[in-house]
Amino acid sequence: MDIKSKRIAILSPVAWRTPPRAYGAWETVASNITEGLVGRGWGNITLFATKDSITKAKLHAVIEKGYEEDETADRKVWEMLQISEVMEMADDFDLIHSNYDFIPLTYSRLINTPVLTTIHGFSSDSIRPVYRKYKEGYFVSISDSDRDPELAYLATVYNGIDLSNLTVGPKRGDKLIFLGRIHSDKGTHLACEAAKKAGMDLIIAGIIQDQDYFDNLVKPHIDDKSIKFIGPVNPVQRDALFKEAYAVLHLNELPERFGLVLAEANGAGVPVIAYDRGSCREVIADGKTGFLVNTVDEAAEAVGKIEQIQPEICRKHVEDNFSIDCMVSGYEKVYEEIFRREEAKKK
Amino acid sequence: MDIKSKRIAILSPVAWRTPPRAYGAWETVASNITEGLVGRGWGNITLFATKDSITKAKLHAVIEKGYEEDETADRKVWEMLQISEVMEMADDFDLIHSNYDFIPLTYSRLINTPVLTTIHGFSSDSIRPVYRKYKEGYFVSISDSDRDPELAYLATVYNGIDLSNLTVGPKRGDKLIFLGRIHSDKGTHLACEAAKKAGMDLIIAGIIQDQDYFDNLVKPHIDDKSIKFIGPVNPVQRDALFKEAYAVLHLNELPERFGLVLAEANGAGVPVIAYDRGSCREVIADGKTGFLVNTVDEAAEAVGKIEQIQPEICRKHVEDNFSIDCMVSGYEKVYEEIFRREEAKKK
Repeated sequence: MDIKSKRIAILSPVAWRTPPRAYGAWETVASNITEGLVGRGWGNITLFATKDSITKAKLHAVIEKGYEEDETADRKVWEMLQISEVMEMADDFDLIHSNYDFIPLTYSRLINTPVLTTIHGFSSDSIRPVYRKYKEGYFVSISDSDRDPELAYLATVYNGIDLSNLTVGPKRGDKLIFLGRIHSDKGTHLACEAAKKAGMDLIIAGIIQDQDYFDNLVKPHIDDKSIKFIGPVNPVQRDALFKEAYAVLHLNELPERFGLVLAEANGAGVPVIAYDRGSCREVIADGKTGFLVNTVDEAAEAVGKIEQIQPEICRKHVEDNFSIDCMVSGYEKVYEEIFRREEAKKK
Repeated sequence: MDIKSKRIAILSPVAWRTPPRAYGAWETVASNITEGLVGRGWGNITLFATKDSITKAKLHAVIEKGYEEDETADRKVWEMLQISEVMEMADDFDLIHSNYDFIPLTYSRLINTPVLTTIHGFSSDSIRPVYRKYKEGYFVSISDSDRDPELAYLATVYNGIDLSNLTVGPKRGDKLIFLGRIHSDKGTHLACEAAKKAGMDLIIAGIIQDQDYFDNLVKPHIDDKSIKFIGPVNPVQRDALFKEAYAVLHLNELPERFGLVLAEANGAGVPVIAYDRGSCREVIADGKTGFLVNTVDEAAEAVGKIEQIQPEICRKHVEDNFSIDCMVSGYEKVYEEIFRREEAKKK
């Protein structure tokens, strides 16, 4: 039987539309997996996402729109209705590929269909006991650095990004860019400090996830001249923003799990100066597509070396490692391995 | 087959120990059902609750202690681990009796064991869609007034209270009492106003569930002389408190779903002055075990009529209608009906 005719359910979160209008990292990846599989000839892909989602696969939806986009939404209710729906339809699928954190695992022993979970990150240590209870399941990590030592993973499959949304500009921009959630995890205030030390302008883009953090540690830097805040950007605005970029500053305080924005910046030919924490060294080729640093001073110093980085090499690095095609090819291997193991169980 | 040898799983919430040390209405009822069934000779009862729970039934636990009693607890994680556990053991039971709100319903179509849900209240309208999706399930309401019009209920089974914890004192106390969660739903501030109008002392007991409400609307009334706040009380302290009671004021702003405290007060021979909302008229016999009122003025006026109410009649009313035995007898009928219907399905 041709593997591409297998019936796959891709379970996306319902915080946002799939793909999201602006922010929504897990929904972005779920969308890229879905569309990537369809693009490579998989004929029986069903995306479980919000009703307003857009896909070339079959869409199965019970939730009108993302709970982050609807004030009346009760997150827990919508999550439970979404997740139980795919579980109740389990017999219609050969594989359920969950991009929805730990909750689906708690249904997985009640169905006969294998569940693959891409662990997009351990939001806190408190969720690890769930993964450990269900460690007989199939797991994929999104970087080698973001692995739980007690789980057996089938593979690391790096996130793939849609390169058609990203173009390399004719010349470097002259601004430093911070792009991501405004949260201490992402070190927005450190980007401000580094930009000042380097004596360059900074544009900050992203959703404010921690208002207190923004008010106390970021806002004081913003003068609407050398440091500007422009809010969240959609993919088109993001590509335009990258055209203005001299480099992206990503001085994350928390170890990065993957770091979509690193690959996106490189994909637009923009070098990245990132803290050497978590997966950053797996995404950035140090000295070739950006610089890994450990302090704000080192970050400011690295700004002075950006001319060494060639935009075309950044782009090529992403095409070779973080394209949707690379990711989907990785998942095809994982799916094949799961089907092989499931067949072996039956014998 | 003797119905009392059927294997029943009683699923309690894990917010608190079962039974709770002080506050924890749903855990209290789940405990009373469990112990009541064991007391009436049911031989195969398993309580699913926290590990520190106390029961004469078999205890099955995966959660150390209530998430409200452990700062490190992640509520969602513990709920999922607790609920999935009973679902994964479903084949070991003839019936799962859930006292755990809407989440277990989302697992119910994946198992072969019938699930009975006692709906202890619709915490918000946002959870109704879950009940409506799973309306083929078995449901019990805790009062005739707290029913969803779209659900078919097997019965109303009033909560039963443990009368061994409540004693009628030799004479009436001289204080008005507010007992319950400190929250605008429960009208704590209205009790203060009514006590002042009636010119009597008030003792307020209970957990502060809404700190803003307490600080702004209740605290200003507290002078530690005529109006005192003593925090939450355990069952022993509660019985002592009732000894001081002239009457309980229960001027609930939200329609009551059942109103355990109404039955508890009456069980200790204490009359209740309650707003005529929701189930209060099902629990209080107006003019016999208390007075139903509609305003603070009427409540203050009713204080003047308390001598008409006889403590022994209050106690008798609870013994006849809201004892654990009454409740368990109600559930025995419900269980029997479920087994009958399940047998009919098999034929």
